[in-house]
Amino acid sequence: MTLRVLARQEAQAELALPRSTYDYYAGGSGEEITLESNLAGWRGYRLRPRVLRDVAEVDTSTEVLGTRLAAPVVVAPSALHGLAHPDGEVATAAGTADSGSLLCLSTRSSVPLEEVAAAGSGADWWFQVYVMRDRELTEGLVRRAAAHGAKALVLTGDTPYVGLKKRTTEGLSVGSLHLANLAQHVAGGVVDQRATEQDPGIGLDVIGWLHEVSGLPVVVKGVLRGDDARDCVSAGAGGVLVSNHGGRQLDRAVPTALALPEVVEAVGAEVPVLVDGGVRTGVDALVALGLGASAVLLGRPVLWALAAAGRAGVTQCLDAVRADLAHVMALAGARSVAELPEGLVTR
Amino acid sequence: MTLRVLARQEAQAELALPRSTYDYYAGGSGEEITLESNLAGWRGYRLRPRVLRDVAEVDTSTEVLGTRLAAPVVVAPSALHGLAHPDGEVATAAGTADSGSLLCLSTRSSVPLEEVAAAGSGADWWFQVYVMRDRELTEGLVRRAAAHGAKALVLTGDTPYVGLKKRTTEGLSVGSLHLANLAQHVAGGVVDQRATEQDPGIGLDVIGWLHEVSGLPVVVKGVLRGDDARDCVSAGAGGVLVSNHGGRQLDRAVPTALALPEVVEAVGAEVPVLVDGGVRTGVDALVALGLGASAVLLGRPVLWALAAAGRAGVTQCLDAVRADLAHVMALAGARSVAELPEGLVTR
Amino acid sequence: MTLRVLARQEAQAELALPRSTYDYYAGGSGEEITLESNLAGWRGYRLRPRVLRDVAEVDTSTEVLGTRLAAPVVVAPSALHGLAHPDGEVATAAGTADSGSLLCLSTRSSVPLEEVAAAGSGADWWFQVYVMRDRELTEGLVRRAAAHGAKALVLTGDTPYVGLKKRTTEGLSVGSLHLANLAQHVAGGVVDQRATEQDPGIGLDVIGWLHEVSGLPVVVKGVLRGDDARDCVSAGAGGVLVSNHGGRQLDRAVPTALALPEVVEAVGAEVPVLVDGGVRTGVDALVALGLGASAVLLGRPVLWALAAAGRAGVTQCLDAVRADLAHVMALAGARSVAELPEGLVTR
Amino acid sequence: MTLRVLARQEAQAELALPRSTYDYYAGGSGEEITLESNLAGWRGYRLRPRVLRDVAEVDTSTEVLGTRLAAPVVVAPSALHGLAHPDGEVATAAGTADSGSLLCLSTRSSVPLEEVAAAGSGADWWFQVYVMRDRELTEGLVRRAAAHGAKALVLTGDTPYVGLKKRTTEGLSVGSLHLANLAQHVAGGVVDQRATEQDPGIGLDVIGWLHEVSGLPVVVKGVLRGDDARDCVSAGAGGVLVSNHGGRQLDRAVPTALALPEVVEAVGAEVPVLVDGGVRTGVDALVALGLGASAVLLGRPVLWALAAAGRAGVTQCLDAVRADLAHVMALAGARSVAELPEGLVTR
Ligand SMILES: Cc1cc2nc3c(=O)[nH]c(=O)nc-3n(C[C@H](O)[C@H](O)[C@H](O)COP(=O)(O)O)c2cc1C
Ligand SMILES: Cc1cc2nc3c(=O)[nH]c(=O)nc-3n(C[C@H](O)[C@H](O)[C@H](O)COP(=O)(O)O)c2cc1C
Ligand SMILES: Cc1cc2nc3c(=O)[nH]c(=O)nc-3n(C[C@H](O)[C@H](O)[C@H](O)COP(=O)(O)O)c2cc1C
Ligand SMILES: Cc1cc2nc3c(=O)[nH]c(=O)nc-3n(C[C@H](O)[C@H](O)[C@H](O)COP(=O)(O)O)c2cc1C
Repeated sequence: MTLRVLARQEAQAELALPRSTYDYYAGGSGEEITLESNLAGWRGYRLRPRVLRDVAEVDTSTEVLGTRLAAPVVVAPSALHGLAHPDGEVATAAGTADSGSLLCLSTRSSVPLEEVAAAGSGADWWFQVYVMRDRELTEGLVRRAAAHGAKALVLTGDTPYVGLKKRTTEGLSVGSLHLANLAQHVAGGVVDQRATEQDPGIGLDVIGWLHEVSGLPVVVKGVLRGDDARDCVSAGAGGVLVSNHGGRQLDRAVPTALALPEVVEAVGAEVPVLVDGGVRTGVDALVALGLGASAVLLGRPVLWALAAAGRAGVTQCLDAVRADLAHVMALAGARSVAELPEGLVTR
Repeated sequence: MTLRVLARQEAQAELALPRSTYDYYAGGSGEEITLESNLAGWRGYRLRPRVLRDVAEVDTSTEVLGTRLAAPVVVAPSALHGLAHPDGEVATAAGTADSGSLLCLSTRSSVPLEEVAAAGSGADWWFQVYVMRDRELTEGLVRRAAAHGAKALVLTGDTPYVGLKKRTTEGLSVGSLHLANLAQHVAGGVVDQRATEQDPGIGLDVIGWLHEVSGLPVVVKGVLRGDDARDCVSAGAGGVLVSNHGGRQLDRAVPTALALPEVVEAVGAEVPVLVDGGVRTGVDALVALGLGASAVLLGRPVLWALAAAGRAGVTQCLDAVRADLAHVMALAGARSVAELPEGLVTR
Repeated sequence: MTLRVLARQEAQAELALPRSTYDYYAGGSGEEITLESNLAGWRGYRLRPRVLRDVAEVDTSTEVLGTRLAAPVVVAPSALHGLAHPDGEVATAAGTADSGSLLCLSTRSSVPLEEVAAAGSGADWWFQVYVMRDRELTEGLVRRAAAHGAKALVLTGDTPYVGLKKRTTEGLSVGSLHLANLAQHVAGGVVDQRATEQDPGIGLDVIGWLHEVSGLPVVVKGVLRGDDARDCVSAGAGGVLVSNHGGRQLDRAVPTALALPEVVEAVGAEVPVLVDGGVRTGVDALVALGLGASAVLLGRPVLWALAAAGRAGVTQCLDAVRADLAHVMALAGARSVAELPEGLVTR
Repeated sequence: MTLRVLARQEAQAELALPRSTYDYYAGGSGEEITLESNLAGWRGYRLRPRVLRDVAEVDTSTEVLGTRLAAPVVVAPSALHGLAHPDGEVATAAGTADSGSLLCLSTRSSVPLEEVAAAGSGADWWFQVYVMRDRELTEGLVRRAAAHGAKALVLTGDTPYVGLKKRTTEGLSVGSLHLANLAQHVAGGVVDQRATEQDPGIGLDVIGWLHEVSGLPVVVKGVLRGDDARDCVSAGAGGVLVSNHGGRQLDRAVPTALALPEVVEAVGAEVPVLVDGGVRTGVDALVALGLGASAVLLGRPVLWALAAAGRAGVTQCLDAVRADLAHVMALAGARSVAELPEGLVTR
């Protein structure tokens, strides 16, 4: 159900990782219905390729919010890469940069953002942020990210509380759950659990506030409805990311492949619409692009790649999806991301 | 396919109960198609959550026909709790009250309603009634229920005859089938089988009659069509309960999740519409609420809870669903039962 | 997937019959897609029962083309009952009469029609006919049937050639394939194979011809389209029987449950529309009635019943379906075949 | 899931062939979703047969682009028949001619086209062509085909690059991959890999060019969209062949059974529309004809037939499908390919 490279990396990761880590990464909330229907969602579409069109050169490159990308396939923010690899997000950043892709760094990284930024050696990166109960801490963090070169903020809006997972992950070692980015903002480095929790009381106005304090475009992550997308854009969002958190928050939330069209319809003409959840192949990506997405994000595949082979694994993973995308674009008669055939995707 | 607490309780109940009792509780009529499609019905819907809405406080409480509820999740009437636990409905009533929920007590309880009413220590309860061939007996029973504090009658309308079940339940001990509520209405305590059978010849006019003799609102249970709901309300019903008797009456009757919208459309603006059948999670409940239900009822889960751990088990079960509902409401951007997002539910 | 009585009878028949006979009866043509989708067809519908309607008395009786029936559940014509039971159609006729039902006797019966007619002891019966290459033979046979009391002809229109079956039935003994009804029409009793083959060159005009020579109403069997039904009625048909020959002729022909509505729409106001194929329960029958059928026919179930227990088996089978129909009619709020609730059936 | 003859031949082929050859033939690209949904596509339709129509004579013969056919069931172009049988395409051509069918000979045949043409002993044949990077080589090849009697060109348009297959075919011997048709066009017989690759840069104008240099009608193969079909016809195509290369090019391309109607709608009135992909039975073919196809092509079945029994196997295969088509046409009330009933096919 995935590209050969990615399938192999997942198998390697499953062997390499403790069961609790594997389950922490792989699992979803509730009955894992959304987790599974994310994958099925992309497979539910069919492509209508064109023939006899010049595809001697296929160009997968694109630009999103000023960031140049080798392909519209980027790295979703995910917590605690240190569980997957000793180098944590340093390896992810370097491997992502090697592939000409973009890292959305999670607030909950295992490595402080400064080190991650440095590891990307000049590549653009975005910073994923939660608005925490401690607003000052949030502001400090965001300013730090901007100061160290983050090109956009990804505001995760679907996690007022952490979704209850189906699988137990009891063995996860507490030490490894250390939130490296927050330590320096608090006296003595001891983070107050409650202060760093996401604030479930926030509203749309935080979008404007984050933009103001950071000077960066804010992409709202977790949007699944056209009306919500519209509200976010009205509140100052520079982009929206259609996501259900990889099936880790509200179970039975619509699969992103089904939510994407209504969001594109609502705001696609004004801001970039990104999407993640279950993207595993070039065809998945092509379907998303055909439905109007500006780029797709990969969550778990990058974690498996990291666990399987560190920095090189991440590059392999991203390169594989990019190459597959180029291949299937050619087979579909599409020469560039900007010139996809009309009516490429159907149900 | 259910919450972890409920799944565990069902497993415990299956171990604890004789096979015949388990099958009596678990089974359905005909080919059990409706039994299974009740579960699938809720899962067939998808949720469209909103992001960045203040859900610091989520309020699951509500009121139905004057009864305050900690959550719109209440106990469906089911027969013979004595088969599940020595304390029978006394344990159910107490456990339900502990959870701030509501018990709909079955006419066919193992314990006389007076004792059950007492066990609830002041909590509201409703009384489920069949109109029996012996109309006087019916009237006497209903008056007793009202006198002992029942706040509403639930008139079961889908059981002119008892549906033929798929599973044999031959081992069910006859003694345990004693109908405690009826004994006192008949000379010498010996109940005439035929007199206590439901009268298959009744019509909609019994709604008004029951209301009159009891002074209580009458909720008609078993409604699956908009036109029927309308007829019931015209005949004096104070509410309707969309139900197919948990797949125990007409097999291949529409799953309740599919019947609910047309009933809400027909009468939802005038009377509360409740629903049962296959509700097992907070998401199931949220889907029902999103489709316009005022509350959901749990049938078998409460029986498993009772068999697994008596009074405490019932409380755990109801608390688990309520907590799960609160959790998923927050994830859906819903702060209270009265303020669910528009268009929360889709197919 | 069927009533308990019928399931048991099929199991007994499978044990009792040689494999080749079982497969001859059970099998279908091509890939058996139509065979299976006939069963699934009925299950694809859902019922919308009514509540609180007087169903103290439920009347399943009806009349079709002048034939009174205890229930609209009758016996489909099927060949060679001698393979199932030594008494062949004599047992079927007697068992059918005992149940107040109707036998459609196949031309290809193991017992001459005179004996079968006598065995029914006065009960109405219909005669299924093919128009053979030898038209005189056909005429003689039809006149015999009329003379011996057949009340209608069932003209099988879907078998210009015999459908190629999936299962081999190599062991079928040739002796048992003797066509008892034809022997007397030919010199020396030796039937010329080709003469008794169905004539693939016939057209709609044979309907009028059969009516003329027999004086009986002609029901065309095998109709699956509204336009065809209309053509048949214009050509003099007194009724149409929606059938795909139990999935034994054109594989991937529409399941009868799906074809029925368009045929009812086309001619249901003028002539009775009957249906067969995969009917196994009272609910299947109720769905068919709700869609506008005047009666359903049982094919294989009667063969299993016959093999399992002869005459008594046939009665048990028909009684079981009739009783189940009565039961589910009551649960659906339907007091008689003529007064089914509006909108009883939905998809 | 196929005719008995074809199923047996595939089983024999699987036994006879090395695994790598079997997988090379049987496999598809990507996740093999299109491969499988090609088969499912035809099965998703249902037939609406007519009754009592004169089908004493059923005529399967037809004519496509001037080629008379015993039935509208012809041989799809496929590479390297030498892997299946020592005689390669010589056996295929002879067996096809024996059945009164048509061979579309692949450019990538194991035997030079002159020998194949001779083997057909006068039967019409068509030549499948790719436009290669070396345009002169292409022209030479096409002229040779025309000179040796090809009656049409089949221009494969869906293969700008070869689709990446799911199954590994590592054992395939390189010698057997010799492209016999190309050798004579190059100095010393050594083919330059790159020169003989398909040119991914071609556009619709090659249609006119091929027509010009060959003087033959050009059928574009790989068309899956109405608009594309229209563009091809405007560019001079004499026919279109709805195909996704048997699920070997763009995975998740629409199944051909679903693409066919829109192509027929767009150009069916002007040029013949052919279709291939997953056709395995007479019913599959009848569905295609009912949807407006002029003929169907068989890909893998002919390869299995060839591997199983050479020339005779190919004839058996084609005869089996033709006979099955005749049979099901009769059962559907269709007396000839030109006179199919209206509305024969439904979903
Ligand atoms: C283990 C794990 C941790 C995650 N952590 C975060 C996070 O810290 N912040 C965030 O916005 N999303 C987080 N996500 C969600 C991802 O950004 C993304 O939405 C999701 O993984 C995409 O689905 P996919 O894994 O099917 O590709 C996490 C996902 C996983 C699997
Ligand atoms: C064992 C059992 C006994 C029941 N007894 C009654 C009853 O006495 N009266 C009644 O109205 N409904 C009765 N019901 C139906 C329930 O009220 C309710 O409609 C159904 O159980 C809801 O479906 P669920 O079990 O899937 O939650 C019974 C259900 C079960 C499972
Ligand atoms: C073994 C067998 C023999 C049949 N013979 C005849 C026949 O002689 N004439 C006829 O019109 N239909 C015949 N039929 C078709 C039945 O009349 C009927 O259409 C079909 O069996 C109904 O489907 P069911 O078996 O699923 O109930 C036969 C069916 C079977 C299974
Ligand atoms: C092994 C194999 C080789 C093929 N080679 C060619 C080819 O050389 N040229 C071409 O146009 N199509 C080629 N095809 C595609 C077929 O022409 C045809 O489109 C496809 O096989 C039809 O699907 P089916 O195999 O399900 O019948 C090939 C197919 C197979 C299976």
